[in-house]
Amino acid sequence: MTIFPLAHHLAEFTKNKVSSRFSTEIPATDGGEVHPNPIYLNYGCPNDGFFPIEKITVHTLDKPFQTKKLSKAEIDNLDLKTIEIVKKELNEDLIYISDGFQYMAPSGHDNLYKFNKSLVTLLNKPNYDDWDLVITLGAADGLNKIFKALINPGDTVLVEEFTFTPSTFNLSQFGGIAVPVPVDFNEKSEGINVSKLENLLDNWSAIHPDLRKPKALYTIPTGQNPIGTTSSLETRKKIYKILEKHDVLIIEDDPYGYIVLNDDFINRNVTRDEYINKYLSKSYLTIDTSGRVLRAETYSKTFAPGSRLGFVVGHKGFIDTITTISSLSTRSPSGISQTILYNVIKQRGGLDSWLDWKIEISKAYSIRKKIFYDYLKASKINEKHFIEVIEPKNGMFLSVKINFELNEKLRKNDIFRNLALLNNKCLKHGVIVILGRVLAVGEEAIRKSNFVRLTLTMADDEDELLEGIKRFASSIEDLFEYGN
Amino acid sequence: MTIFPLAHHLAEFTKNKVSSRFSTEIPATDGGEVHPNPIYLNYGCPNDGFFPIEKITVHTLDKPFQTKKLSKAEIDNLDLKTIEIVKKELNEDLIYISDGFQYMAPSGHDNLYKFNKSLVTLLNKPNYDDWDLVITLGAADGLNKIFKALINPGDTVLVEEFTFTPSTFNLSQFGGIAVPVPVDFNEKSEGINVSKLENLLDNWSAIHPDLRKPKALYTIPTGQNPIGTTSSLETRKKIYKILEKHDVLIIEDDPYGYIVLNDDFINRNVTRDEYINKYLSKSYLTIDTSGRVLRAETYSKTFAPGSRLGFVVGHKGFIDTITTISSLSTRSPSGISQTILYNVIKQRGGLDSWLDWKIEISKAYSIRKKIFYDYLKASKINEKHFIEVIEPKNGMFLSVKINFELNEKLRKNDIFRNLALLNNKCLKHGVIVILGRVLAVGEEAIRKSNFVRLTLTMADDEDELLEGIKRFASSIEDLFEYGN
Repeated sequence: MTIFPLAHHLAEFTKNKVSSRFSTEIPATDGGEVHPNPIYLNYGCPNDGFFPIEKITVHTLDKPFQTKKLSKAEIDNLDLKTIEIVKKELNEDLIYISDGFQYMAPSGHDNLYKFNKSLVTLLNKPNYDDWDLVITLGAADGLNKIFKALINPGDTVLVEEFTFTPSTFNLSQFGGIAVPVPVDFNEKSEGINVSKLENLLDNWSAIHPDLRKPKALYTIPTGQNPIGTTSSLETRKKIYKILEKHDVLIIEDDPYGYIVLNDDFINRNVTRDEYINKYLSKSYLTIDTSGRVLRAETYSKTFAPGSRLGFVVGHKGFIDTITTISSLSTRSPSGISQTILYNVIKQRGGLDSWLDWKIEISKAYSIRKKIFYDYLKASKINEKHFIEVIEPKNGMFLSVKINFELNEKLRKNDIFRNLALLNNKCLKHGVIVILGRVLAVGEEAIRKSNFVRLTLTMADDEDELLEGIKRFASSIEDLFEYGN
Repeated sequence: MTIFPLAHHLAEFTKNKVSSRFSTEIPATDGGEVHPNPIYLNYGCPNDGFFPIEKITVHTLDKPFQTKKLSKAEIDNLDLKTIEIVKKELNEDLIYISDGFQYMAPSGHDNLYKFNKSLVTLLNKPNYDDWDLVITLGAADGLNKIFKALINPGDTVLVEEFTFTPSTFNLSQFGGIAVPVPVDFNEKSEGINVSKLENLLDNWSAIHPDLRKPKALYTIPTGQNPIGTTSSLETRKKIYKILEKHDVLIIEDDPYGYIVLNDDFINRNVTRDEYINKYLSKSYLTIDTSGRVLRAETYSKTFAPGSRLGFVVGHKGFIDTITTISSLSTRSPSGISQTILYNVIKQRGGLDSWLDWKIEISKAYSIRKKIFYDYLKASKINEKHFIEVIEPKNGMFLSVKINFELNEKLRKNDIFRNLALLNNKCLKHGVIVILGRVLAVGEEAIRKSNFVRLTLTMADDEDELLEGIKRFASSIEDLFEYGN
């Protein structure tokens, strides 16, 4: 069993030594001579001559939606930056077809590993030395492997009472139990209610006499899904201190953190320096001194979901366990994905240009957020207090609370009925939204789930977005006018 | 719990209903009107305008090693067939960046699913109707999910006593126990010894009083790893009948079946028709009437390991369970991999051209096999009976038995000592091989593991291959000359 300070949090199964290594290269036993240039007749790794591809050319974009409205001829005239991926050359900084399309270590390609490491070091360096990361198949895979590494049946994990519920499905398949923590759901909210969290942990055995003390908090601290809130560093420090006191780990899910929603991105050119130091939120890693934070990142929202690439950062002891889990399950992430993603980032300029792309992404989302937010704030339904709009700080969602109690008919219904009525109106007016109850954990949260989550990301353009939010407003008006 | 004829083989956990669906689109409850063109403000799927890629051009090869020895200028002159992957067009037969780089169902992209289905229908159509397939992240992932679907701790699975041992690691992580079945290890072998298999199952409780009756046989029937044997359809029918009698499932691992090793591929042009009807072995699926065969395929050996793509075929009941496992673990395979692989195959001509590529692959491997086999058969070490060469029928490996007992010193050693001595000689002469014991399951098999596995695939060219096999022969000569 791996030994490190918080190793007692590892799941029982990690104590069983399961072989995960196909050890085939046996060193010499006689101390005799060893040929300096051996020929390898051992593995079943096809020679790259068997791969049906010679070269890949990728035409890349400088900013989101650059070509969306253009004709083929107009696109051809753009002189898009192309990057070339060849079979093999002597540049160790790139990933070639010869190695990117080959079998790979379960932790992924070394160049992408190093790039991720430079990203974490620049933006969210852990506050201790013994950290590492492992490439995953995206955030869901990362969280899955974290839960597998930690959870014994019956273990509990704290979750924000409104959250991305599929993560709780991941947890429950290992027999873990998600226990909701109250969050503030208003304009000033930073997410988790700190004093309620403290009270919950201080009085755990009185509040939850039948449940084990939590092993971890699963949290989306930046651009919380669905609320859109982002907690300040000050609040994170308070939460960390409480969790440290109770020896609770932090599983930080951060798919949205790079997407900053702020009018500054619309009104002027935000520099890389400002993006890093003024706008990006700092991970819990940066205040972690004991190695209790496991951070899951993904390339789904900033590159493409089809990449199925992400990584988990944390204490080396946990990362080693997750790497072993990879070697026994998924093996390495797709090498083709890694080859395309890494070369696009690297050949376009590496870390700097990747940050520029994230700034452009933030700008595009800030514009979209402004359309939604401004429209709703100026709307009649807001004026009449039928809705409460929560302005998101990060991410791709905007949540709207609906004050059903302002209508005398709706006031008499339960939450299920009211959300169903609202859904009917949305379907009638032609807008598909996510009902709050789908993103609520536990009965109390469901009772309070009088909200919908709207996404900023799916629409093709600003016209569609505006039409969508108008339809939503009409749905609410219609609902409050008739009360059914 | 899913109900189908062999559902009693599913693992216990499949009976617990674990939510794996993020059901967010709620149908109307009032029977009222529904807008015909809704705007989607629900999911977190980024609009394809957020993907940083406009177009991908892939330069493909007509046959393996086509460009291996050519200069850049010579390659440019070749006029390689290029295929283009654009953001979106109205051709439903292709995978575009807009959908291939997006989130995807856990079972993979529908076009690749259909292609795989046409491949199975053409080559290995199951002998019953209710079959299906699911795209996996390669053979290892497929086998993992099969074992997860079936294995309760303490369940047993029969395996060939010499096999790809990492598959038994996959099994043991679910608490499964691999029980070796004797195989014939000689020139005439078809792999599993049928009468010993029958005896083992007929007298199971006497032979293994402490073990449960096997749930499945895990077998590599075509190009068995490491032996290289391929069983005839006649033998497969006998084995199927025995397993049917004892209600044992068949897990057919077939990474090598498409690689046919036969001089005909060198001496003349093998047609697609011949390849299909004369040279390819038929899967156990083709004789399966009760839905007890689960076949795992992979694109690793015929396209590239970095694709991390494959599929599992079998009864719909099992496939549904595996799809649920995917939705709770890996989610979909890499969409970027699927986009590249599918478009290369499809735009080069689909099924026909894919079969042509496999024929070219078979030719290249047949040439390599002939170099090894002819050299060894004509060698002094063969003449002196120090070795026994097993001519492989499929795949990428050739195994060589070493008759240590012909040397009076070696005769006195145990198998570990002799393999270590052989390994020392190989290291000295500069050839890396895999020692038989690494691929043996159980003590008896290890005692009989007086062989090495040589790979045909890693060498850059025929010169390297010939040099490798010469070094191997020198190692054996050296060993038998000195006996240590």
